[in-house]
Amino acid sequence: MNKPNIVILGAGYGGMMTTVNLQKKLGANQANITLVNENNYHYISTSLHETAAGTLHHDRTRVTIKDVIKSNVNFIEDTVVSIHPDKKTVTLKNQELTYDVLVVALGFEMATFGIPGLEENAFAITDTDSSRLIREQIEYNFAMYHNEKEKTEGRLNFIVGGAGFTGIEFVGELANRIPELCKEYDVSPSEVRIVSVEGAPTVMPGFDEALIEYATNSLEARGVEIITGAMLKEVKPDGIVFERDGELEEIKSLTTVWAAGVKANSIVEQSGFETNRGKVQVREDMRAPDYDDVFVVGDCALIMNNETERPYPPTAQIAVQAAEVVAANVKAHIENNAMHGFEPNLMGTVASLGHNDAIGSILNDRKIFGWKATVMKKVIDNRYYFKLGGIPLLLKKGKFNIFY
Amino acid sequence: MNKPNIVILGAGYGGMMTTVNLQKKLGANQANITLVNENNYHYISTSLHETAAGTLHHDRTRVTIKDVIKSNVNFIEDTVVSIHPDKKTVTLKNQELTYDVLVVALGFEMATFGIPGLEENAFAITDTDSSRLIREQIEYNFAMYHNEKEKTEGRLNFIVGGAGFTGIEFVGELANRIPELCKEYDVSPSEVRIVSVEGAPTVMPGFDEALIEYATNSLEARGVEIITGAMLKEVKPDGIVFERDGELEEIKSLTTVWAAGVKANSIVEQSGFETNRGKVQVREDMRAPDYDDVFVVGDCALIMNNETERPYPPTAQIAVQAAEVVAANVKAHIENNAMHGFEPNLMGTVASLGHNDAIGSILNDRKIFGWKATVMKKVIDNRYYFKLGGIPLLLKKGKFNIFY
Repeated sequence: MNKPNIVILGAGYGGMMTTVNLQKKLGANQANITLVNENNYHYISTSLHETAAGTLHHDRTRVTIKDVIKSNVNFIEDTVVSIHPDKKTVTLKNQELTYDVLVVALGFEMATFGIPGLEENAFAITDTDSSRLIREQIEYNFAMYHNEKEKTEGRLNFIVGGAGFTGIEFVGELANRIPELCKEYDVSPSEVRIVSVEGAPTVMPGFDEALIEYATNSLEARGVEIITGAMLKEVKPDGIVFERDGELEEIKSLTTVWAAGVKANSIVEQSGFETNRGKVQVREDMRAPDYDDVFVVGDCALIMNNETERPYPPTAQIAVQAAEVVAANVKAHIENNAMHGFEPNLMGTVASLGHNDAIGSILNDRKIFGWKATVMKKVIDNRYYFKLGGIPLLLKKGKFNIFY
Repeated sequence: MNKPNIVILGAGYGGMMTTVNLQKKLGANQANITLVNENNYHYISTSLHETAAGTLHHDRTRVTIKDVIKSNVNFIEDTVVSIHPDKKTVTLKNQELTYDVLVVALGFEMATFGIPGLEENAFAITDTDSSRLIREQIEYNFAMYHNEKEKTEGRLNFIVGGAGFTGIEFVGELANRIPELCKEYDVSPSEVRIVSVEGAPTVMPGFDEALIEYATNSLEARGVEIITGAMLKEVKPDGIVFERDGELEEIKSLTTVWAAGVKANSIVEQSGFETNRGKVQVREDMRAPDYDDVFVVGDCALIMNNETERPYPPTAQIAVQAAEVVAANVKAHIENNAMHGFEPNLMGTVASLGHNDAIGSILNDRKIFGWKATVMKKVIDNRYYFKLGGIPLLLKKGKFNIFY
């Protein structure tokens, strides 16, 4: 009897948690489980803004995959090139895989909305590599400052495009980091600008009004300039152009970080799946509509909220929850049992505003601010480490500096 | 009765030690002592290669000037623009000073020997600012590496022009630092090259042959490529061109560090002093030949060794020793007493090859290697801190990790 090949593409929240759940459910004699990822580590993408700002080292926000998978999982470090669902194969850069069950968990990539210069000239908080590059980009410009006889305009201006979740969390960390960098490089804080540029009329569009006001005050008190109602028109190597109230404005900067949009990994669309806004609109059991042996989870999956008839947001929280259902349904699939439907259980959201401030709305729309919210944020991060790797991983990577 | 104005330009080894010695010798009612420096700190230039390699933080290698001067010294943070010895004035960027006695201790600047592109495209280990820029330049290129789809050729090649004292000390630190950076940025050490390019037939030209061989082996064992007999022809933004055995060769690199030549601060020559190779050939009492009220110390002074009829090398050791004589003679000058001649007391030299290896020749040309030499190097550094700021400064900045 042939053991089925289960192939999981991507080790983000969705793929990693599917793997971890599956390796508990299936013995080595029941299936071959293969996890494919381009790096040998899993990174905590909700902490990448800290890596990018330089406030938390990337080794604190990533986990070596071999440390959390068991011997019944085969890990391949390689890059996915294309998926062929009709042939049940996946082409990697260095080999070809065949599968009986596929889990697509390829995550997100930067969405540029066709804005000229954005892809070439903006930095993005996409993964460990791109985030630590931002950290070095910022530090390099500080180091350069006193070495220029004629100062380059905007050398110490740092622009963040997008004041949604990631943009605001990054700006909050940056506001804490800049004074340290000023000290490190003998620069007066008055030489530095942090500018948050957002198209919507406020930061954190969609959030509760009181939370928005709190966040705005917290950031402005630390010197962040917030420009709302501003549509980005162009990113140049030395600055941005945006439109506000019908007027074009320009801000000089060598460092524009784009945090205003992500989309599903384009491999999904290119591989012939039926897509909706680039994502696979999954069935209730998390399978692709047109293939019974393909599950999709994480940022590549569009999960419709049947009550509101709008998709759920692509959050880590939902990816982690969905991965439990995906793992259970993969097992049911190979055992010919009935599958479960996925119903997200929204626990609320907390956005940090630097290491010592945060905002959040938790169960029943209760609002929390400041210290309480920072503790809640760390509790959420720690819960994830526990789910992923149990107590050993929690102790190794967890955030226990709750009074810091 | 008017108190004489003593003005000291520059707070390098020569200027700083002249100030520290003078403030002990002269009471506040005897003279106005003014020290001028462009930064509010004094840096230990013999440790700049560690700052540049990123192996020792610059705060460990600099001293806030106010921490070592006493209340009878007036410190001005400003940049010297020109000296007018006939008018007994000094023009600073923001003010004009008049003096009765002047001590010129303006240090060195990079000598480029007219090599095309060197000034524009090479980095230099000149001061704290330029050294920490090198640290960031190196780290930025590591951070960039995994963010390029098409790798820039030579992105991780680091070229050091000149295998004299500074060049070799820097290369030695870099050889220790690179493995750490490889780990930090998930880069295989085989992707990185450290290339030392020297015009002379060996590294450390002028040093003892056994020491040269030891240094060569130590560096090559750690992966440093040493190219000797190579004349630098051009530095481009993306590499260097050099000539060896009549052939032109090119090595790609985004980071060329020039450590092959320094010259006296050009303000000295521009201010009308009689110069020899850009330096003021001082009299035995360390005064300029043409002005009785101007002393010159450190890299701007050319001190002739009457035995060999060649100048002494411009070392920290000699600058510190000369500063004692300068301070004594400044006092003698304002008191109309006889001055002393300066006679360097050469104590030997130690060059580090990274934190765990060194070579040196000490008293009576005894050669030392390895661990013993690293200890000797630290003893020399610590002696200086003690001379500069006594036991408090020694304890604060000293290097006590002698078994490290």
